[in-house]
Amino acid sequence: MELIDGNRIAAEITAELKAEVAAIPGRKPCIALVRIGDDPASVSYVKRKEKTAAEIGIASRVILPPASIGQKELESLVDRLNADPEVDGILVQSPMPGPLDERAVFQRISPEKDVDGLHPVNLGKIGQEDDTGLVSCTPAGVMELLARSGVSLQGKHVVVVGRSLLVGKPVALLAMRKKPPANGTVTVCHSATADLSAFTRQADVLIAAIGRPEFITGAMVKPGAVVIDVGVNRVPDPARKTGYRLTGDVHFPSVAPIASKISPVPGGVGPMTVAMLMKNTLKAHRLASARR
Amino acid sequence: MELIDGNRIAAEITAELKAEVAAIPGRKPCIALVRIGDDPASVSYVKRKEKTAAEIGIASRVILPPASIGQKELESLVDRLNADPEVDGILVQSPMPGPLDERAVFQRISPEKDVDGLHPVNLGKIGQEDDTGLVSCTPAGVMELLARSGVSLQGKHVVVVGRSLLVGKPVALLAMRKKPPANGTVTVCHSATADLSAFTRQADVLIAAIGRPEFITGAMVKPGAVVIDVGVNRVPDPARKTGYRLTGDVHFPSVAPIASKISPVPGGVGPMTVAMLMKNTLKAHRLASARR
Repeated sequence: MELIDGNRIAAEITAELKAEVAAIPGRKPCIALVRIGDDPASVSYVKRKEKTAAEIGIASRVILPPASIGQKELESLVDRLNADPEVDGILVQSPMPGPLDERAVFQRISPEKDVDGLHPVNLGKIGQEDDTGLVSCTPAGVMELLARSGVSLQGKHVVVVGRSLLVGKPVALLAMRKKPPANGTVTVCHSATADLSAFTRQADVLIAAIGRPEFITGAMVKPGAVVIDVGVNRVPDPARKTGYRLTGDVHFPSVAPIASKISPVPGGVGPMTVAMLMKNTLKAHRLASARR
Repeated sequence: MELIDGNRIAAEITAELKAEVAAIPGRKPCIALVRIGDDPASVSYVKRKEKTAAEIGIASRVILPPASIGQKELESLVDRLNADPEVDGILVQSPMPGPLDERAVFQRISPEKDVDGLHPVNLGKIGQEDDTGLVSCTPAGVMELLARSGVSLQGKHVVVVGRSLLVGKPVALLAMRKKPPANGTVTVCHSATADLSAFTRQADVLIAAIGRPEFITGAMVKPGAVVIDVGVNRVPDPARKTGYRLTGDVHFPSVAPIASKISPVPGGVGPMTVAMLMKNTLKAHRLASARR
């Protein structure tokens, strides 16, 4: 069994992006990070994004509206950022406080600046195999982990467990694209699948994104499969200072011994998402420059 | 075996739409049908759309630019139709003559008027399970055929053969939506799938959209499966006046005896597409009225 090291691969990508940014003459890429209110998880996510951007040489502009901001006000803020030629990417950190309509906000962001890849046009472009779109960061991170671990999906059966808008569906569409290393045969299973194990046991590549802690056990996995764990679940753990530990959707102790390659949680897909956000910012900058 | 009669189901939908249109006070829905040049198949397709619209009470405006029209000119025509408050739906008949960039034209059509469902935002909305979009007509027709034949996908394994942008991918996304009668477990196979029969034989519902005449044979189908044939292939036939006959992707003589339900070609999915185009036009009209 080979461990797929997301920290190492993300660091590799960060270093590549740094070199690319250094080579850009003139204005460097810039990402606007909008965080509404003071949710502690959001604070730490945005901090990490800011830090990684700085490391790469991407400018970031952190905007901190109060939790009381209204929908209209927030949408005008997005409009201003859409119109600002110095801003290449816009990220509005989720979750937003209660009364705000997240979907409306995500659809308001201009697709060319939607570095989180949440606008329907960017999902549609994946389906249309149109490379001018921005792919959302977690599914892009999964594909990059596979590619950089030497896993081709060609002729393989890829089973995705979970059909979320953020992960399951986009990763399925990415895995079935014609261009290698994709070109896989793809099955999407979910909570309503009858006899789930019958499907997961067929997987050459198993992508777990169902949001249930340690749900995929060794008995559900074909020996030799490649397993990517997208789950991020907080499980109560009184032995820890925080009171919880992070666990994936895969029961690592029983699956690792039979998998050929496996990504752990933490340290697998997680670190990749920030790296892919930065990659998208660079792409948005490149596309904007090409349009000028 | 029960034959799924697309002609009967399409006529049923047409009658329902006619009643709905009759009940609309004020301006009736209107579709603009743009046909460039004189390709004989396009001429007959547009005629059928015009005729069905008239039958339902939908106004149609047929626009016939010469085959020599330039990309810019065609895009300005689309812009004018986008801006015209009396036009609810815009269809530019495919295939367009050689030098025109079809994708750019489809992306130019305002998503709210894209009754053919080809704009990436409308594909993305299927993936996001956002019901405000317009679903492209062939996949919508497949789902409607299934629903009106009493086939629920819940707990079923749906195998789609073909991953085209027009059919395979959107139909897969529709079949995995949470809302019944969808909610299926979905596999997408294609030309690069290793051991295709191993997948098709698992299908409770098999959707053939690979574009190869009579490719799916009885040996590839599980007894009792529901089979939907999306193929439209012209096979040379010297015995016919036209010199060809239409055939699907399914070898009907060997599959029909073991299927529980099957849609034929012609007379299956084909008649549904025009009905769904009209349904989209009505939906676009309703959405436009709601925005005013």
